[in-house]
Amino acid sequence: MVELQGPVEVVGAGLLGTSIALACRRAGLEVWLSDTNPEHVRTATGLAAGVPRPEGARPQLVVVAVPPDHLGPEILGALARSDAVVTDVGSIKAEPLRRVLASAPDAASRYVGGHPMAGSERSGPLAAGASLFDGRPWAVTPHETADPDAVALVEALAVLCGAAPVRLGPEEHDHAVARTSHLPHLLAVLVASRLTEAPEGHLALSGQGVRDVTRVAGGDPALWQQIVALNAEPLRGLLAEVREDLDALHQALTDGDRSRLTGLLARGVAGTQAIPGKHGGPVVETATVYVAVPDQPGGLARLFAEAEASGVNIEDVRIDHDPTREVGLVELVVAADRAEHLAGSLESRGWVTHR
Amino acid sequence: MVELQGPVEVVGAGLLGTSIALACRRAGLEVWLSDTNPEHVRTATGLAAGVPRPEGARPQLVVVAVPPDHLGPEILGALARSDAVVTDVGSIKAEPLRRVLASAPDAASRYVGGHPMAGSERSGPLAAGASLFDGRPWAVTPHETADPDAVALVEALAVLCGAAPVRLGPEEHDHAVARTSHLPHLLAVLVASRLTEAPEGHLALSGQGVRDVTRVAGGDPALWQQIVALNAEPLRGLLAEVREDLDALHQALTDGDRSRLTGLLARGVAGTQAIPGKHGGPVVETATVYVAVPDQPGGLARLFAEAEASGVNIEDVRIDHDPTREVGLVELVVAADRAEHLAGSLESRGWVTHR
Repeated sequence: MVELQGPVEVVGAGLLGTSIALACRRAGLEVWLSDTNPEHVRTATGLAAGVPRPEGARPQLVVVAVPPDHLGPEILGALARSDAVVTDVGSIKAEPLRRVLASAPDAASRYVGGHPMAGSERSGPLAAGASLFDGRPWAVTPHETADPDAVALVEALAVLCGAAPVRLGPEEHDHAVARTSHLPHLLAVLVASRLTEAPEGHLALSGQGVRDVTRVAGGDPALWQQIVALNAEPLRGLLAEVREDLDALHQALTDGDRSRLTGLLARGVAGTQAIPGKHGGPVVETATVYVAVPDQPGGLARLFAEAEASGVNIEDVRIDHDPTREVGLVELVVAADRAEHLAGSLESRGWVTHR
Repeated sequence: MVELQGPVEVVGAGLLGTSIALACRRAGLEVWLSDTNPEHVRTATGLAAGVPRPEGARPQLVVVAVPPDHLGPEILGALARSDAVVTDVGSIKAEPLRRVLASAPDAASRYVGGHPMAGSERSGPLAAGASLFDGRPWAVTPHETADPDAVALVEALAVLCGAAPVRLGPEEHDHAVARTSHLPHLLAVLVASRLTEAPEGHLALSGQGVRDVTRVAGGDPALWQQIVALNAEPLRGLLAEVREDLDALHQALTDGDRSRLTGLLARGVAGTQAIPGKHGGPVVETATVYVAVPDQPGGLARLFAEAEASGVNIEDVRIDHDPTREVGLVELVVAADRAEHLAGSLESRGWVTHR
């Protein structure tokens, strides 16, 4: 049984690296930090995330947390520097592995890729926190010649960070995130791009739908071009499938083919139902209770306190702000068979609700 | 000055029609209801939304609230039945207007289209509520020969329902919602469709991003095929633009053209920034504070009560459930210059936060 005892060396003191360092420090492990930007190391050490990497350091585990383009060289450097187990936290797994197998086949057994499904709209060590990974999936992607003890050590890191390890192969990982993350990002970008060309006044009709669809498109282009460029193969396949569907939609609209349109739309419904439910269990049928809430500090607090009093568990929340008045509509998503009870309970406390 | 005094006749006692009826009753107006489904009328009258339409009724205003395919015939029927002003609440405006102008050019001045930007995942009169429209935009779409008094009466209905009237032409409306609602819906469907083909286990890596992008794709295909089929022209233009971008993305991935990829991604960022901010004002720069919350009744209430104590206004909320544990990550979106203060305040009360 392998135990994660440290020291842990973190290469790259950005958001992810510093957050992992903080989680390791929280668990009492020794942590060494490095970054091509010395300012990042100063900031991270100032946050008590660890100390600068000493000369001749011999860590138990090296965590490479650098942008996708730098993963291969930095992983190879870490493997050459010591006999430690090496992992990384990059969004793509096959391309850096290919470089490792090509340049350091003898050391490759000590490398096991990883990818925590966590992030933030912000970046850099100042945005870091030990709880960034709490409850998130953390992909662990051993290759065929990986040392089982190295795999166990990387899974121990994920658990130490509060995440849930999910084991799958490097190629499989890249195909999975192409579908669940990179393709949604690219299509959100295409929807958002159309908004830049909207005639004046047209965007006044924007509702929650377009906001939800386009939110991820706000991500940093300098980072995302690396991610999609290094996962080009699976993405090109998915884009080709999307193009086929797009042409089918266009043709069905041209032909006024209602049953073809219905069929294409119904497949979208099936897709939304394929996403795993919370806690990995079956998808719970939910219903939404709409509540009008004054848009001031205190309104939400009172609403949630009184929703609590009803004993109903809130599964999700959305806030849709009134474009013209100081009032917002809050959508409380709850189990379908509890919606009636929640709405009644809130109404009896003076809230205006709607189902 | 035209005053909305009633009686108001509502044709179609579904979600929207019954909600409008309830709002009119709340304001003390007489309301008459009809529906091809007598069960709907019984339910709506049971909710005190009005009474069945009497023989020879002479309303001041008729509101047609039927599915898109039935708008034209029902509007024409209402114009023929009385000399009332007639409006509707359909998602598309040009196609029914064309039918009215073609079949009843003399009565057309009494018809003014409308479209409240409100809805629900549920449908039918039981889902209705007088507050459905609170704070939502309500497009009012007069044609060139519309009577100004009729326009004023329809705007008065929007105001009575608590909505904010937004005036624009029927064609302009259809182009605007093609961009802000129908295209986002179709591309969300294409992303969601790919999820139905995912190999086993791949969807375990689904995060909040893909959930946000695909949520609207869960909408009723029987309704949405009508909406997109009747707004085919603007949609085909937008789909053609999307296809050009899609081909450009595919080509850039094939060529490994990083600067082309960055350019395409940057346009998406600009698009997310083009959506109007809350209250129609400029977009406020926001930041997200992540908080780990036990997934039980009471956790959110305590969080919002203590966020209130910090005096920071919550702009938006997202809940990302742990796929494996009984803990959720809550994202509190606040003005960027208040995030530090909120996080510090919550931490001092024992919450684990991350920015």
